[in-house]
Amino acid sequence: MAFGATLAQYVTSVTLDKVPQRDIEVAKLAILDQIGVALAGVGEAPGVKVQALVDRVAGNEASVLGSPRKTSTWLAALVNGTLGHTLDFDDCSSFGHPSVVLVPAMLASGETRERSGRELLEAYIAGYEVGEALSRIVPRRADQFHGLHSTALFGPLTSATVSGKLLRLDESQQRHAWGIASSQSGGITGNFGTHTKPLHGGIASQAGVMAAELAASGFEANLDAIDGPLGYIDSVVAAGRMEGVDVNKATAGLAQWHIADTWRLKKYPCGYIAQGAIDAALQFREQTGLQLDNLTSVEIRVPHLQPYFRVRPTGEFSGKFGYEYPVASAILDGRVIKSTFSDQAFRRPDIQGHLGKFRTLEDPAATDGPLGVLVIEAQGKTIRQPIEIPLGDHRRPAPPSQVVEKYIRNAQEVVGPEVAGKSARMLQSIETLPSIRPVLDMLAKRA
Amino acid sequence: MAFGATLAQYVTSVTLDKVPQRDIEVAKLAILDQIGVALAGVGEAPGVKVQALVDRVAGNEASVLGSPRKTSTWLAALVNGTLGHTLDFDDCSSFGHPSVVLVPAMLASGETRERSGRELLEAYIAGYEVGEALSRIVPRRADQFHGLHSTALFGPLTSATVSGKLLRLDESQQRHAWGIASSQSGGITGNFGTHTKPLHGGIASQAGVMAAELAASGFEANLDAIDGPLGYIDSVVAAGRMEGVDVNKATAGLAQWHIADTWRLKKYPCGYIAQGAIDAALQFREQTGLQLDNLTSVEIRVPHLQPYFRVRPTGEFSGKFGYEYPVASAILDGRVIKSTFSDQAFRRPDIQGHLGKFRTLEDPAATDGPLGVLVIEAQGKTIRQPIEIPLGDHRRPAPPSQVVEKYIRNAQEVVGPEVAGKSARMLQSIETLPSIRPVLDMLAKRA
Repeated sequence: MAFGATLAQYVTSVTLDKVPQRDIEVAKLAILDQIGVALAGVGEAPGVKVQALVDRVAGNEASVLGSPRKTSTWLAALVNGTLGHTLDFDDCSSFGHPSVVLVPAMLASGETRERSGRELLEAYIAGYEVGEALSRIVPRRADQFHGLHSTALFGPLTSATVSGKLLRLDESQQRHAWGIASSQSGGITGNFGTHTKPLHGGIASQAGVMAAELAASGFEANLDAIDGPLGYIDSVVAAGRMEGVDVNKATAGLAQWHIADTWRLKKYPCGYIAQGAIDAALQFREQTGLQLDNLTSVEIRVPHLQPYFRVRPTGEFSGKFGYEYPVASAILDGRVIKSTFSDQAFRRPDIQGHLGKFRTLEDPAATDGPLGVLVIEAQGKTIRQPIEIPLGDHRRPAPPSQVVEKYIRNAQEVVGPEVAGKSARMLQSIETLPSIRPVLDMLAKRA
Repeated sequence: MAFGATLAQYVTSVTLDKVPQRDIEVAKLAILDQIGVALAGVGEAPGVKVQALVDRVAGNEASVLGSPRKTSTWLAALVNGTLGHTLDFDDCSSFGHPSVVLVPAMLASGETRERSGRELLEAYIAGYEVGEALSRIVPRRADQFHGLHSTALFGPLTSATVSGKLLRLDESQQRHAWGIASSQSGGITGNFGTHTKPLHGGIASQAGVMAAELAASGFEANLDAIDGPLGYIDSVVAAGRMEGVDVNKATAGLAQWHIADTWRLKKYPCGYIAQGAIDAALQFREQTGLQLDNLTSVEIRVPHLQPYFRVRPTGEFSGKFGYEYPVASAILDGRVIKSTFSDQAFRRPDIQGHLGKFRTLEDPAATDGPLGVLVIEAQGKTIRQPIEIPLGDHRRPAPPSQVVEKYIRNAQEVVGPEVAGKSARMLQSIETLPSIRPVLDMLAKRA
């Protein structure tokens, strides 16, 4: 892992006086040649269509949440997708974080095309089902998706579905859109716990909107890019490991509907797996009244540990993707909220001094609760606190009032309580809205 | 491969009246929740820094070739990268198409930061060497890079190097830039022969410029994203197949210089491997005077056939990535130029009527020439035409005059012969230019 440092030292040290003359001469020819070749591409379809997309960026078409200035659809999706994944407070499903890529595409394309709320909802659902279908094709393994982030893998195709439907693409155009999006799929879980994880949400949203708009303009990809040779499934989703891959599983499920059976609301703004462990920690705190000072050790034992929970990046968001910091915070503060993951909170001596007591173990026998157990040594005793399925999981759905309350808590900090309440009521009956614009005007703070 | 069609039919058929009420209710809650969560992300670093990047798109900072209007650096790189790969006429190396991603980043960051031509050249060379280093880490296999396009794999990190150096990032910032770029790596070879292949050049250029600028603004990624656990090499470049991967091979080569020993100029605007076969076809035509009508069959036998040469996408550019169409065109027309790959040329009856005679075979014994042999049956005789290393390959370098001639031929169609000649002279002494702006003003047709 010294490689990045070595490479960075090398790059900053490159100056012409160190480069052999023959390499300098070739580099100059290469630059000359490349500029000529690019000029030869002027006027051909790919550049013309991409230029048309770029020309619109100075426009005033699509809203960014919390910002009065509009931008182009795909750049609005980039920002709204990044915002929507920043706290890791957004929902989960079997194919990653669905709404962070579906909703920005839905808002951007819905607003600019002036579609009804009903059409927006249909597009959202179609995008969700496409994500579900794709995720059924590949068997889950310990090194799930060879380390890529499921949201970044499935996201471009799901947002391309939402925008494609709102752009009313025909079937062939929709397939081209998926083909374009297939070439923008990726995103490493090694970036969990840094700013770049939220960017995955933004890039995936942007990629899908861009793909749908390019396809609408006649931009072409491989019509069979999803499952054709050297396509999306072969090369990205199941890269190098096609055993057990079964496209028919996706096709067979298309007649069903999956949202109610897979959707997971998050109560706490951090990695999904920690949600149940936080509940267990809060229950332990309430039941025993014990404090961090009283504890000797805390083992978080879970039947299966996702590889990315072993990644320990630095940076202010890094506490979000382990178990230890959120569980310790729950015991210290009695709550886990947005400010729990601020630099300031993370650096408090009264938490840093105790984090060494916490560790996470993969233990297939840890079945006190369906998601594992906290094994807490305190004052000479061992307390086993089962980790239950958290409220909000599809197996234990949250009441709608809890979702509305979470929305209002989140929204009112930006738009105030009145707009938060009013926009919540409008979104609760989105299928009756003639347009999403009035909602976006409020949330972009223009109204 | 009917999957895309089935999925597209399904998506266009989704309407609310078909969706169970419980799924509709959950979808509405999911949308509400996502919007609230995104509002809660307003003001946090990732969104603020991405918004700042997007806010600049209406600016007038970086030139697009052949277009008088400027845009932001990363969007200029998107367009220039797409233009530069449109004809597949751009150069090659051991890590893909180097200049199509390096040069757009160099122009955009060099122009806006007003760096000298010397600094631009140093940045280009550093980016090239980083690409070389990364490409040495992974052993080549038959299914090279599990079907991903090397330009799209290595491109984001190489353009992040060029822009990073021109932005004068410190070592830590440069590592963050590579981390951000690592999450934007990808692009399927299944899209070869469609508009989306050129887009790979654009997206890779854009990703690197964006990554460097975000890193300069304090945006963070995993500092060890390249070779750390669940990082770029693990998950993208060598996805799922880490046997034989050796980072030390990259580090060991950093003291050397590779451009003169790896650079490949293209003479014909199509896939690299066909370049030698076209030479052989032209030589056959000149030596025998035989025409397509006279031929019974043409076998293009090559020792190794890249998997993507077996992909047969539809679309106007599809002739570029096989051997058959370029070789047939060479025999018919006596040349292979930009217009060879137009719809019109592709559809000519006098070529379509003969394409059935051509086929490509993988034949390890086909060593008449270092790159294989054309086995042509004509008038009862068999003619074996060896496929030699084409002029322009680093093993048989093109004279500089040939590179300049190619540039002028390409550039004059857009900017006229005078500007083509003048800009060629300026670019040939790029290291003496105080700024790249005067060149770009000419090539963007502003001067």
